[in-house]
Amino acid sequence: MKSIEWLGNTLRILDQSKLPTEIVYRDAVSYKSVAEAIENMEVRGAPAIGAAVAYGFVLGALEYQGERDGLPAFMERVQARLAETRPTAVNLFWALRRMEDRLRECWDMDDIEDVRRVLIEEAGRIAEDDRRMNRLIGEHGNEVVPEKANILTHCNAGALATVEYGTALGVIRSAHQAGKMIHVYADETRPLLQGARLTALELLQDKIPVTLIADNMAGYLMQIGKVDLVIVGADRIAANGDTANKIGTYSVAVLAHAHGIPFYVAAPTSTIDLKVASGQEIPIEERPAKEIKECFGVSVAPDEVKIFNPAFDVTPAKYITGIITEKGIVAAPYSVNLLKLMVRS
Amino acid sequence: MKSIEWLGNTLRILDQSKLPTEIVYRDAVSYKSVAEAIENMEVRGAPAIGAAVAYGFVLGALEYQGERDGLPAFMERVQARLAETRPTAVNLFWALRRMEDRLRECWDMDDIEDVRRVLIEEAGRIAEDDRRMNRLIGEHGNEVVPEKANILTHCNAGALATVEYGTALGVIRSAHQAGKMIHVYADETRPLLQGARLTALELLQDKIPVTLIADNMAGYLMQIGKVDLVIVGADRIAANGDTANKIGTYSVAVLAHAHGIPFYVAAPTSTIDLKVASGQEIPIEERPAKEIKECFGVSVAPDEVKIFNPAFDVTPAKYITGIITEKGIVAAPYSVNLLKLMVRS
Repeated sequence: MKSIEWLGNTLRILDQSKLPTEIVYRDAVSYKSVAEAIENMEVRGAPAIGAAVAYGFVLGALEYQGERDGLPAFMERVQARLAETRPTAVNLFWALRRMEDRLRECWDMDDIEDVRRVLIEEAGRIAEDDRRMNRLIGEHGNEVVPEKANILTHCNAGALATVEYGTALGVIRSAHQAGKMIHVYADETRPLLQGARLTALELLQDKIPVTLIADNMAGYLMQIGKVDLVIVGADRIAANGDTANKIGTYSVAVLAHAHGIPFYVAAPTSTIDLKVASGQEIPIEERPAKEIKECFGVSVAPDEVKIFNPAFDVTPAKYITGIITEKGIVAAPYSVNLLKLMVRS
Repeated sequence: MKSIEWLGNTLRILDQSKLPTEIVYRDAVSYKSVAEAIENMEVRGAPAIGAAVAYGFVLGALEYQGERDGLPAFMERVQARLAETRPTAVNLFWALRRMEDRLRECWDMDDIEDVRRVLIEEAGRIAEDDRRMNRLIGEHGNEVVPEKANILTHCNAGALATVEYGTALGVIRSAHQAGKMIHVYADETRPLLQGARLTALELLQDKIPVTLIADNMAGYLMQIGKVDLVIVGADRIAANGDTANKIGTYSVAVLAHAHGIPFYVAAPTSTIDLKVASGQEIPIEERPAKEIKECFGVSVAPDEVKIFNPAFDVTPAKYITGIITEKGIVAAPYSVNLLKLMVRS
């Protein structure tokens, strides 16, 4: 089950909003279709969104019917449309910039087909890099996982949130493959239930023991000593280590801190945004009210009730034991150590 | 909309599990029907359960067809059936004991009809006491509510959780009626969504401003300064002040503590169980897996996933700013002050 797959001139997107009850694919042949899939959260998870927009950019270039001269202006529109889909995850902007840079380097290519080839290669590299980085995140992260551990995770930072293998679930997979006795508690993660629908599914498929809980049970589990470690993904990490991730992550971090439980963030360095000094500068997306008023299309609240539905929150660096990246694990002081990490090759 | 209503020889129970989409009543004419309604959470909330079992006890006495001599033995069976419905809320056992005591006082009444009359009166008093106590809880609680406040509440401790008016929502109603600028954030309260379905509904009906959130958003709201006060209900309060309440309450308490936000429990003294020294002795009910695997009958997780579904958790007294009862507000040290409160007439 792959989040996205490039089929030559089509991006096959697994519609994750329908999982686990239905397996439906969107075969996107236009950049607008990719943008729609991201907005509807058919494809979600910062690294997967990054790879998806890279291919969305490619599809834009493939769709373009005009002269070579008009391509840059058209691609600006493509980029703008893809950029407006979701504001919080930085991998989206990082991937678009990588594609844009590559396109700019093609200025002396007269044949559009050559440009397209370069862009397809670059998108392929972004996807391939993500696969490789997740394996490395898994290897590094395994070092902090005890031989026997109950690990709590929030939302889905798994294969479905990436191109393959996953970040937080990459660490869990790696520890499991290393023969450690791992048991995972998965927060169901309202409103869209990525934990119940996606994390539980992935772990069941890999035969990694998993127990599903409602989000509000995590504190009680910690209180009764059932959580040894928390590992989550990230949508954007500020220069000071503050981390934006799926709404509810902050509560889990405060609870872990109150119980003396290590709290790790697992993410590729493409999620680190040094241009943002602290979490306060990270835009937090608000999503439609019906995500909370409804549950799989069934009404669960009075129609007229007001809703607050932020999709993310920011966990201050002080609650984060370490950030697990493909280049190694970083700990406080993050302002210094993230900078060092980013310049390391 | 009343949680329960005594119609002479029938207990009309509003089936809260169907709200807000359907308004369905169960007209219970047998104690077994009342027991079923409690198990299915058609009637829920510690004080409402207390009043419901009192009338369940009455229905048992009305159903009985034998001689006067056999009544006590039959009523023991009635009591046992009602007592096994839900283990955590102490009001259930408190109300049954009150009914049992009353029945014992009738030992010299030869006519069963006289006994039945006494029991109906006693159940009526339990219900009437609850109405009165909730008003008093509201009055006392109003003292701790600022003139302008964003109040977070968890689950439903409203009119629907009691005979009338509510405990936590009683305080909110009282503050609103006193002309204070009150806005409520209601946790939806997975798995059964009492916050979304019941609290939102009650507050909308009373035109008290309310915003519904997913449980995992409470921490973020506190972080951005949107919560001035937390008020919740209780299912059982131990002698040392530890409080069992709907799962997720503990997390909210830890978060409130971390943000320096006052956290109040509102409950009648019938919820205080001095026989239980601390929260560790309070039994925590586990509920069926399908409550988490499904949402209003719609499957939201893989069928084969393991579930942990505790219905309650215990908030240690150290996180509780005050306990609001019909006799006044109690603060730490709870071991001393709860005892003093209970002997106060």
